[in-house]
Amino acid sequence: MRASRFFISTLKEAPSDAEIISHKLMMRAGMIKRLGSGIYTYMPMGLRIIRKVENIIREEMNRAGAVELLMPVVQPAELWQETGRWDKMGPELMRVKDRHGRDYAIQPTSEEVITDVVRTEVKSYRQLPINFYHIQTKFRDERRPRFGLMRGREFTMKDAYSFDRDAAGMQQSYQIMYDAYVRIFDRFGLQFRAVAADNGAIGGSGSHEFHVIADTGEDALVYCPDSDYAANIEAAEAVAPSAPRAAAAQALTKTPTPGKAKCEDVAKLLGLPLSQTVKSIVLAVDREDADAEVWLLMLRGDHDLNEVKASKIPGLGAYRFATEAEIVEHFGTRPGYLGPIGTKKPVKVVADRTVAAMSDFVCGANEEDFHYIGANWGRDLPEPVVADLRNVVAGDASPDGKGVLAIQRGIEVGHVFQLGTRYSEDMKATYLDESGKPQLMQMGCYGIGVTRILGAAIEQNFDDKGIIWPTAIAPFEVVLCPMGYDRSEAVKAETDKLYAALQASGVDVILDDRGERPGVMFADWELIGVPHRVVIGERGLKEGKLEYQGRRDPAATAVAVADMADFVKARIAA
Amino acid sequence: MRASRFFISTLKEAPSDAEIISHKLMMRAGMIKRLGSGIYTYMPMGLRIIRKVENIIREEMNRAGAVELLMPVVQPAELWQETGRWDKMGPELMRVKDRHGRDYAIQPTSEEVITDVVRTEVKSYRQLPINFYHIQTKFRDERRPRFGLMRGREFTMKDAYSFDRDAAGMQQSYQIMYDAYVRIFDRFGLQFRAVAADNGAIGGSGSHEFHVIADTGEDALVYCPDSDYAANIEAAEAVAPSAPRAAAAQALTKTPTPGKAKCEDVAKLLGLPLSQTVKSIVLAVDREDADAEVWLLMLRGDHDLNEVKASKIPGLGAYRFATEAEIVEHFGTRPGYLGPIGTKKPVKVVADRTVAAMSDFVCGANEEDFHYIGANWGRDLPEPVVADLRNVVAGDASPDGKGVLAIQRGIEVGHVFQLGTRYSEDMKATYLDESGKPQLMQMGCYGIGVTRILGAAIEQNFDDKGIIWPTAIAPFEVVLCPMGYDRSEAVKAETDKLYAALQASGVDVILDDRGERPGVMFADWELIGVPHRVVIGERGLKEGKLEYQGRRDPAATAVAVADMADFVKARIAA
Repeated sequence: MRASRFFISTLKEAPSDAEIISHKLMMRAGMIKRLGSGIYTYMPMGLRIIRKVENIIREEMNRAGAVELLMPVVQPAELWQETGRWDKMGPELMRVKDRHGRDYAIQPTSEEVITDVVRTEVKSYRQLPINFYHIQTKFRDERRPRFGLMRGREFTMKDAYSFDRDAAGMQQSYQIMYDAYVRIFDRFGLQFRAVAADNGAIGGSGSHEFHVIADTGEDALVYCPDSDYAANIEAAEAVAPSAPRAAAAQALTKTPTPGKAKCEDVAKLLGLPLSQTVKSIVLAVDREDADAEVWLLMLRGDHDLNEVKASKIPGLGAYRFATEAEIVEHFGTRPGYLGPIGTKKPVKVVADRTVAAMSDFVCGANEEDFHYIGANWGRDLPEPVVADLRNVVAGDASPDGKGVLAIQRGIEVGHVFQLGTRYSEDMKATYLDESGKPQLMQMGCYGIGVTRILGAAIEQNFDDKGIIWPTAIAPFEVVLCPMGYDRSEAVKAETDKLYAALQASGVDVILDDRGERPGVMFADWELIGVPHRVVIGERGLKEGKLEYQGRRDPAATAVAVADMADFVKARIAA
Repeated sequence: MRASRFFISTLKEAPSDAEIISHKLMMRAGMIKRLGSGIYTYMPMGLRIIRKVENIIREEMNRAGAVELLMPVVQPAELWQETGRWDKMGPELMRVKDRHGRDYAIQPTSEEVITDVVRTEVKSYRQLPINFYHIQTKFRDERRPRFGLMRGREFTMKDAYSFDRDAAGMQQSYQIMYDAYVRIFDRFGLQFRAVAADNGAIGGSGSHEFHVIADTGEDALVYCPDSDYAANIEAAEAVAPSAPRAAAAQALTKTPTPGKAKCEDVAKLLGLPLSQTVKSIVLAVDREDADAEVWLLMLRGDHDLNEVKASKIPGLGAYRFATEAEIVEHFGTRPGYLGPIGTKKPVKVVADRTVAAMSDFVCGANEEDFHYIGANWGRDLPEPVVADLRNVVAGDASPDGKGVLAIQRGIEVGHVFQLGTRYSEDMKATYLDESGKPQLMQMGCYGIGVTRILGAAIEQNFDDKGIIWPTAIAPFEVVLCPMGYDRSEAVKAETDKLYAALQASGVDVILDDRGERPGVMFADWELIGVPHRVVIGERGLKEGKLEYQGRRDPAATAVAVADMADFVKARIAA
């Protein structure tokens, strides 16, 4: 490609609504252009990256035996009503009426449509398993679209759906997709991690998220450096302390803690470690024809509640945080001084595994400006119901017993999910088994956020000059920067020769023939993030040399003119 | 591709809602699947064809210097309001509100968005010309979606938009696109014709439609076999008869024609050629604060009104057909016996060029059951206003004076259009010229109906067995049909060898390893329309032969095993 036949548009400053680095850099590099809230035009430079991402996904999906089709963007409401998602999905599902007043959804995913295709196309066990995918425009009417392509409303997603005869088959299809995802993210050239994820309300036996590692990631990824264990923090188990609970050593004593409503402040006042304190979190579960049921969850002062884990405690499935009125009614005091001892009305107490192993702990005394010290289970209050309630922290024991956990930040870009019969039941997607009996199909679904990959890749790979693309998904693999293409015959001749040689070898090369000054040219391509650059100048040519510089290289390398094509190819292949 | 890893689903009968052959065959061949009215899932077999069509378009657009980007499906109403199309487009424009009640259009085309991109990105004459295109999902809420992909609601379109400094530049960009379209349709391997089209309300200096030739086409294409002249029938000029009007020979005579309200019946009754009769078409133009103005258009009995030409007559821009009440009021009688002589109230008369050259003609007498014979201009009624009002017919003189016209049917699949400043004016899309003055950009737009190509290609290429794809856009170039792939070692070995050899040569080959009976296999691939087939059987192998058959060949050709790969490649290249 010659730059003069392409469209390059860079900005010195990012627009003020760009909050994060990937959004800023994509806007500055002219890769996307905002059309409306969460809606972007993919400019030529951005579209090239999207196409490369799509092609890698397509190749690996095909290799894994998935078959590509294309489902419509505008989908009849009837199918969404069959699964109940028309009502459940709320305003995120963009709805539209046609000229006859019929309802349609603009697809955010396509479980309903693919299940409809398969239930009519697949009759027999002989046609299973089958895995269909498409790469298509999606729309989610996010409440607060932001971060450019990271949380847009219109985006491109690859979604695949497997259909199997039974759960064992589904698990096999799932594993094939998992392996394909590993190959896909490997080929992108991104650092990533697959983590076990929570299955949410769907249940089922398995779900993994694929995250691009980035310090700016929204998600906390838990992993064990000494083993294969890895999970989203929502799903990571905090194992019970291995040491038994120490015997009580202190007497229960009510202590004044005036104005100290937080564990940190109480610990400081009392000169105790934060890990000796216990915090009280009050939840409520609404009941028909009765007041809400009030629950008290107890966590160590330095730990955080894991809301997903809380929702899995029997009876807490539909919890909410208690109101101040409910708290005062049950505890006789306001938040900040709550505890399990001497509540005004009975509450259901659940202690985190760590808390259950504590002795001589500090907790609120249910009286304003007072805490207890020296509280002990079985003596001052009954032995509690125990559950895993907290987020793990770095240094916790790994659930597989093979070391301690570490935490890093990630950006979710893929998700594989064992759906079981969640959709096939509602939509009566059955096949006839060997004995001619109808059986529900077992489904899996597998998504990759194509456009999100761009944002995530940048969050992982940038410096103060701009983006640093991995070669596999760079808009161009190499840029040729001639110094005076229109002025110097020698420069033009050598540039054209190298350009032709690289093109002939299948290298995706752009020749910057715009006639810009070197400073502008270099700044543009560093901002855009092309990973390999060759400078062709008269001075170098006099010595028979061209200058190569990798985007991460601290300095340029002089390479003999005749060797440059091979040198570049070797660097691309590296 | 192995058939066992693909998805093949054929039907013996087309669903009853499929009216035309291309729709029936695409449904039967498992290429598309109906999701809703005018909304189809592109099944794997259909998607392969779409991708091949897209790739040819993409290559030729890029070669012509157009730059690909991707504009959103969901577009803010504000831009559509700037050009007035939000109001003008009516219910065909699918509209949707987001969670905040803001209005959006689901794009039917993207003039507004691209003009918005360019007016902010392009500042200087140095950046022009530029031509952007995208291949994207479109939606038009057709009143009566039908014919499968031919008139769907959701479809895929390639739309390109050129921006130039001035009209001369626009015409140059237009010619580049015209030439690219010729290459694209040539590469598809379809018989096509580019015809001059009417510019509609936009005006401007040029517009051509690209039609795939098919007897079942909706459009009539006019061309001169002896010259380059070609036009849509809407735009084809009917030149005035070259012979001067003959002198009046008959007296004007009112003749009873009881119950004969049609020219055909009157001519028969009177024993005159139909070409001696004149029909009267009554139009009305509404006026503010006054009754509608009534016009009488006169055409020869065997000619048809061209409504586009009528709308271009000064004063008739917004005509409608007159009501029966208006007709009775002005002519004193009901339709069937109307004429220009002795109307009850004055009407504006326009005669078609052919009619203006007639003498001794027959027309209605403005009295029920009576016509005049022997009517003559300048004697029985004033010389008329003359205009080209009719559709041309085969045998008419070509407007370029180089022969006579022929007519064939076509399916419109592409349109190139000189827009001028239609959009840049409304949206203030200006650039700074050499002297720093803002100037309006001159635009062109260029569409190809990607999914429509499939329907059109089939309407042109089918037989009683199914579809016959041109090789360039066939879902597969060649199918290998082994007789007993799983039973015969020899068959399997030779099939695998040929499969590998063809794949290594870049041939898009499918190996039918489904284990179907030969009859089923052949019927499927003839229906699907793969253009080249090789049968590998034990009987042939004993003589060292395989069987090749082109989809249009009346019989198979025996080819030596070792020669088959080259033979197939030669046939594909032919």
